[in-house]
Amino acid sequence: MRKKTAKKRTHNYKKHIGKAPGTLVYTGKKTEKQLQIESFDYTKDTLTENVLTNIEDARSYKETDSVTWINVDGLNSLSEIENIGKQYDLHPLVLEDIVNTTQRPKIDEYDDYLFIVLKMLYYDKDENVVIEQVSLVLGKNYVLSFQESEGDVFDTVRDRIRLGNGRIRGLKSDYLLYALIDAVVDHYFSIIETLGNKIEDLENDLFEGHAKDNINIEVQQLKREILKVRRAIFPLREIINRIEKGEHPLIYKRTITYYRDIYDHLIQVSENIDIYREMIWSLMDMYMSTISNRMNEVMKVLTIMSSIFIPLTFLAGIYGMNFEYIPELKYHNGYFILLGVMFVMFILMLVYFKRKKWL
Amino acid sequence: MRKKTAKKRTHNYKKHIGKAPGTLVYTGKKTEKQLQIESFDYTKDTLTENVLTNIEDARSYKETDSVTWINVDGLNSLSEIENIGKQYDLHPLVLEDIVNTTQRPKIDEYDDYLFIVLKMLYYDKDENVVIEQVSLVLGKNYVLSFQESEGDVFDTVRDRIRLGNGRIRGLKSDYLLYALIDAVVDHYFSIIETLGNKIEDLENDLFEGHAKDNINIEVQQLKREILKVRRAIFPLREIINRIEKGEHPLIYKRTITYYRDIYDHLIQVSENIDIYREMIWSLMDMYMSTISNRMNEVMKVLTIMSSIFIPLTFLAGIYGMNFEYIPELKYHNGYFILLGVMFVMFILMLVYFKRKKWL
Amino acid sequence: MRKKTAKKRTHNYKKHIGKAPGTLVYTGKKTEKQLQIESFDYTKDTLTENVLTNIEDARSYKETDSVTWINVDGLNSLSEIENIGKQYDLHPLVLEDIVNTTQRPKIDEYDDYLFIVLKMLYYDKDENVVIEQVSLVLGKNYVLSFQESEGDVFDTVRDRIRLGNGRIRGLKSDYLLYALIDAVVDHYFSIIETLGNKIEDLENDLFEGHAKDNINIEVQQLKREILKVRRAIFPLREIINRIEKGEHPLIYKRTITYYRDIYDHLIQVSENIDIYREMIWSLMDMYMSTISNRMNEVMKVLTIMSSIFIPLTFLAGIYGMNFEYIPELKYHNGYFILLGVMFVMFILMLVYFKRKKWL
Amino acid sequence: MRKKTAKKRTHNYKKHIGKAPGTLVYTGKKTEKQLQIESFDYTKDTLTENVLTNIEDARSYKETDSVTWINVDGLNSLSEIENIGKQYDLHPLVLEDIVNTTQRPKIDEYDDYLFIVLKMLYYDKDENVVIEQVSLVLGKNYVLSFQESEGDVFDTVRDRIRLGNGRIRGLKSDYLLYALIDAVVDHYFSIIETLGNKIEDLENDLFEGHAKDNINIEVQQLKREILKVRRAIFPLREIINRIEKGEHPLIYKRTITYYRDIYDHLIQVSENIDIYREMIWSLMDMYMSTISNRMNEVMKVLTIMSSIFIPLTFLAGIYGMNFEYIPELKYHNGYFILLGVMFVMFILMLVYFKRKKWL
Amino acid sequence: MRKKTAKKRTHNYKKHIGKAPGTLVYTGKKTEKQLQIESFDYTKDTLTENVLTNIEDARSYKETDSVTWINVDGLNSLSEIENIGKQYDLHPLVLEDIVNTTQRPKIDEYDDYLFIVLKMLYYDKDENVVIEQVSLVLGKNYVLSFQESEGDVFDTVRDRIRLGNGRIRGLKSDYLLYALIDAVVDHYFSIIETLGNKIEDLENDLFEGHAKDNINIEVQQLKREILKVRRAIFPLREIINRIEKGEHPLIYKRTITYYRDIYDHLIQVSENIDIYREMIWSLMDMYMSTISNRMNEVMKVLTIMSSIFIPLTFLAGIYGMNFEYIPELKYHNGYFILLGVMFVMFILMLVYFKRKKWL
Repeated sequence: MRKKTAKKRTHNYKKHIGKAPGTLVYTGKKTEKQLQIESFDYTKDTLTENVLTNIEDARSYKETDSVTWINVDGLNSLSEIENIGKQYDLHPLVLEDIVNTTQRPKIDEYDDYLFIVLKMLYYDKDENVVIEQVSLVLGKNYVLSFQESEGDVFDTVRDRIRLGNGRIRGLKSDYLLYALIDAVVDHYFSIIETLGNKIEDLENDLFEGHAKDNINIEVQQLKREILKVRRAIFPLREIINRIEKGEHPLIYKRTITYYRDIYDHLIQVSENIDIYREMIWSLMDMYMSTISNRMNEVMKVLTIMSSIFIPLTFLAGIYGMNFEYIPELKYHNGYFILLGVMFVMFILMLVYFKRKKWL
Repeated sequence: MRKKTAKKRTHNYKKHIGKAPGTLVYTGKKTEKQLQIESFDYTKDTLTENVLTNIEDARSYKETDSVTWINVDGLNSLSEIENIGKQYDLHPLVLEDIVNTTQRPKIDEYDDYLFIVLKMLYYDKDENVVIEQVSLVLGKNYVLSFQESEGDVFDTVRDRIRLGNGRIRGLKSDYLLYALIDAVVDHYFSIIETLGNKIEDLENDLFEGHAKDNINIEVQQLKREILKVRRAIFPLREIINRIEKGEHPLIYKRTITYYRDIYDHLIQVSENIDIYREMIWSLMDMYMSTISNRMNEVMKVLTIMSSIFIPLTFLAGIYGMNFEYIPELKYHNGYFILLGVMFVMFILMLVYFKRKKWL
Repeated sequence: MRKKTAKKRTHNYKKHIGKAPGTLVYTGKKTEKQLQIESFDYTKDTLTENVLTNIEDARSYKETDSVTWINVDGLNSLSEIENIGKQYDLHPLVLEDIVNTTQRPKIDEYDDYLFIVLKMLYYDKDENVVIEQVSLVLGKNYVLSFQESEGDVFDTVRDRIRLGNGRIRGLKSDYLLYALIDAVVDHYFSIIETLGNKIEDLENDLFEGHAKDNINIEVQQLKREILKVRRAIFPLREIINRIEKGEHPLIYKRTITYYRDIYDHLIQVSENIDIYREMIWSLMDMYMSTISNRMNEVMKVLTIMSSIFIPLTFLAGIYGMNFEYIPELKYHNGYFILLGVMFVMFILMLVYFKRKKWL
Repeated sequence: MRKKTAKKRTHNYKKHIGKAPGTLVYTGKKTEKQLQIESFDYTKDTLTENVLTNIEDARSYKETDSVTWINVDGLNSLSEIENIGKQYDLHPLVLEDIVNTTQRPKIDEYDDYLFIVLKMLYYDKDENVVIEQVSLVLGKNYVLSFQESEGDVFDTVRDRIRLGNGRIRGLKSDYLLYALIDAVVDHYFSIIETLGNKIEDLENDLFEGHAKDNINIEVQQLKREILKVRRAIFPLREIINRIEKGEHPLIYKRTITYYRDIYDHLIQVSENIDIYREMIWSLMDMYMSTISNRMNEVMKVLTIMSSIFIPLTFLAGIYGMNFEYIPELKYHNGYFILLGVMFVMFILMLVYFKRKKWL
Repeated sequence: MRKKTAKKRTHNYKKHIGKAPGTLVYTGKKTEKQLQIESFDYTKDTLTENVLTNIEDARSYKETDSVTWINVDGLNSLSEIENIGKQYDLHPLVLEDIVNTTQRPKIDEYDDYLFIVLKMLYYDKDENVVIEQVSLVLGKNYVLSFQESEGDVFDTVRDRIRLGNGRIRGLKSDYLLYALIDAVVDHYFSIIETLGNKIEDLENDLFEGHAKDNINIEVQQLKREILKVRRAIFPLREIINRIEKGEHPLIYKRTITYYRDIYDHLIQVSENIDIYREMIWSLMDMYMSTISNRMNEVMKVLTIMSSIFIPLTFLAGIYGMNFEYIPELKYHNGYFILLGVMFVMFILMLVYFKRKKWL
């Protein structure tokens, strides 16, 4: 007996219903962990890197001309998030969106800052796709990033800031924003690579005839995975497209080319996902025809065996009857003649099925 | 024998056909209940809450600068609706749309007021989706709301007005309108959550092989439910989009951000519905392949049993014949030799089916 | 033997091919009936209603300021139609379109008049959809309407003109045009209601298992009906949309609201048709899965019967053999022991099928 | 053994690959026939009709104010085509397009002339669609038309020019172009009529149960035919749409109405083709369900026969055993009692299958 | 046992993940081959053709007014590519795109040059589609082209430059760019021709009943091939469309006509691919119905054989029973009467199946 009530649901929109707008409700997994704040403050020549426990410590960076990156891991400490919001003058709806992890990727343009929500995708140890929300706020000389939990794809950005040998240290916060988004999008490629390999494996299973009975379940799960990834990635295209138009004063003309590059990558990823989607649909078709083919084979064996032996059994039945007068039974070679007749029938049947290409 | 005439139809457009435009025809369920009028009149500092039996009693609120919310439950008293229409100078087509509950969500802009029709969705006790029409009229300092029956999703709005500790009391009627629409849209999330769970249950039934024979009926009903919900929710997007453009003088610039927030929620809801739609289609596919798989299994059992025992029965039939001269019958161990031959044939058959992976 | 040549075709585009443009060719059913002309001439205070046999009699109405409605039933008298065309200065292509009843709904704007073709839909006695073309010409103070045959949906308009208690008598010809189109569109609702009921009946048949063998034919016919209705109704949306934009001088601003109302109705009708279309496609899916399910059931019965009795028959065959030395046959209780063994096998088989959920 | 190499391919794009742009390559069927030039030169009052063997003979028409129509049948004489091109100053790419008969319908606007490629469709004797390319060049006072072979749909245009009683003689070359395109489009109606009839025939075959085994091949061929026709007709819509916009100086305002009429016809044809396409897809569905239904019927017969007679045969087998002690065999009426039991079982089985609605 | 780890994957996006933007990473096949540089420098009257081993040798061409074409084969020497980039002032992202061979076709407009990525398609010896990336840079008086490996479709362009008898030598670098793209697009026609032939072969196999069991695998592979080709070709349309708009100063007005010609070709190719796609989907449908038909045939044989002989065997079983008193057995002609009865039953069965059209 399945216990319906005990089932873990994957949807939890309800938490938020009926609250006033601007009320912070964290919809992700509850953990006991404290949130962790990491800060980078740099110019072309200087770099200060800190791990803070309190947002007030980052206040000093705000006034300077240097570029500041504040990265917040963990969203369950709502009061601390509100603190950050106050310090950086963020709209209540922005804070609400940061902690609501079921948010769709989106961009909101405010006068002083740009607010972007996007999804970081990676595979966990069991090859399940994990979708983690990343919220980014681009201000005049700072970028805030909010993540659900520790561990991210930003290490390459950190290294480039630390080494200071690339473009990043010499440019403004809009390039830092680009670098962060680029790191996320670059990782999408490893997602679609894994998806592509999964489809290829399924396809090979079908081609080589290893079609297990539960392959349709695997196909279904892959379909859901693709839908999930698609939903996380597709809206980002419009977002980048809007940034690329370059109408917001915080985005400088010289970084537009870089955003266009991200856009091209996203189109490539999207195209791949749509092709996978079409391929997985046609895999199901192939599976269905494979089943039908195997059914056909089963039926042929049954038909051949039955068609050959049922008539022969009938013949044997005839001469097993107990009528007092059955002349054939008296013939000395009756038995052998009958065996001969049966053998001829057997051969004719085989020829017939051979002709029909069933053998 | 099914009695076609006695069947309850779900469509009742006809009531209206052939009437002059502007003629009020109530298309909902007829009840004996009187309509009930509830009024809130508030400024930042004052609040008057009343339950009226007569729209004339609300006249005094019209002239003041305070924000007035008149909520009307029940639409079957056409004369009273006409009264309200007269008092607030509503166009005859607006009144016609208020009482025509098969109306599609829409927005009509008039010089002095905005008229919006939308759908409130909730599940009743039997987990059936109920769609109730809500009509909203936004005037300079008032909001009228019309519902088909008592019971709604506006209690959080009432509480916020009463407590007066949020933004609502300090802002104009356009924010009140936002709060009402937001309450309706927030409730959509619980609808899609239930839909998501229903699909998950069906999917689990299929995955775990509990595939009951009537699962296709359940799938079909879920499909219809999704179509119904889709139709109720999707047109609202354009409506909010039009409000958000902020061209109507009754919508102040500072509330636009809030409407944009609703818009984002609606996009999220719509996207979920479309994903559910795709998933339910592919569930049907999965069901078909499950049926085919089970058929295959049935056929294999039949084929194996028949292919093994029909030839053996034939052999037994041979030696059940009554020919006078069948030399084998005289052999002392003929019977045992034959049993041996049969056993060997049996084993060979098993090996054959094992090789074919049918066992 | 089917006689192909005698088959009544439903297509008759050919009649027109190869004629010079502007040549009148009537493509509807030929009848002997004379065309019948009905005229209404009214102002707010006066009304003249006539049945004319000759268009010349309507000449006097043309000069006056009153609104004139000329309704023509029957299109087979081409010379008379040409007469009307001459009197009202209609372009030859307009006349050609009026008598060509395979015309697609469309609007043509000329300097002095608007020409609209639309489709009147109703069910005949056998519940078949009938599509009749209605052509409307809106002039400065007149409306011409052309129908294929007697009987229409305009009686409510006639009554409103006669009673003179609504808006219609006080307004111009553009409101009369609205009233006529509105009457046609209102009737579309009864079409989609009947379609909805037909689908519901089919669905119930499938749900209740009454699935007759020819249900796929019914589904196919319903599909065609929906396609037919769709094609007749959908183009009207663009037409109303173009009128609603209010760019033609003959459409006054005050009637635009009414045209917008028609537009909303058309969107509602269209949406319903598209939902029906999706539902009917998925009905076919359901039917296919129902067939497969029933096949499964049939196969199970066969497999159970065969799997139980074929091995038992084999056993009986063994002891029906005529070998001289079969020791078991001599045992006094051999027969009963064998019956016992068979019974045990029978029970085991039942248990096996029970476990597999086939029983 | 199929000979792949000897198969006639339907594609021949390759002929052109690797040539410099503007190189003339005729891609149609090679014939020995000379190209044939036909000329009409007319004003309202005069008409000269000629059959030329040489394009130089048409030079005199070029300078005059009269309208000249030069019709060229046959495209294999590339030098002659180049001659015409030189005389009328046509761009090399235009000439390349004229002789490349795999061209897609298109319009190219040059300063002095308009170049249009479209497809003439007709059925040959075996009811196969033939698609022939027609290229039209509209100049200030001339129209050139190029066809692949003799025989066309322009006879009605020729007659109207000769009789001179219509509009054609009084108007300019843009009306002549219209008349030619109109003749081609009018003929499309006979194509879709034939397509409609073919679908109807297939549908009737399925409805009446004449479903031959190879009906899926017919469906497939019809699908291809529809795709072919669709591809030939659909691009023409954009072309006419562009002409209708009236931006080219060679198209006078007074003929725009006529081009709009062609546009309406093309929309009607396109709509029909798309409906046919949908119908043919659902025909396949219907065919599949018909096959499944028939399979069901076959299986029922098998199951009924087997379920009735296999158990009875088992019973007979029991009493055919040779045990020394089978008490029933001694009963005087044992045989008749057993027959009775068998008859009762037979009846019970029939009742059972009747209840299951299998009989 | 399949070795998953040893499988050659077709995706290799990962190589690039986590690098700073502008880092060159070659994603194609690694070969030991040196890159090869070929240069053409020409005016109307002069031509210098060289094979260079070093990009510095091409420096002299840069300053002159003559048109220079530098063609680079092989992309694995990243330092040399960077050299070229430096010499021609290319943006780092351009260089990154040149060596990233998984790039989607695209156009990037810079102030001094146009950068275009497109795909060259050809079939290798095993009839597998090979997709090779070609990057083109159009500068004021030069064109750079980058290919993955030796061997291309540009020989016709080389010949035309060498012979100097066409337009190419007299025009600017924008015409040379056109000539190169045209050569690539012309080759697409041979791709779709081969695809068309493959589909035709599959279709013929199905029509002629040669439907092998693994035809669904072939269909699936063809589907993938079409998806692959589609993805390589479709984006090129937008690219050409953007060039054709003629907004970039490097594209002269007189060559626009030629780019429009390419655009028409691409539309034609795209249309063909989409038709093939639809045809291949419906091929799968046809295959499924063919399987079902064959299954039906198999089932009929089984049903006919069983339905005829199982009842007859039962009859024989009856008279094989050993009851002491079975009166029929004593009749002298009992045996022959029974044979007669059996024969009549046999005939009746045949008639029954004949009527059902199963024979």
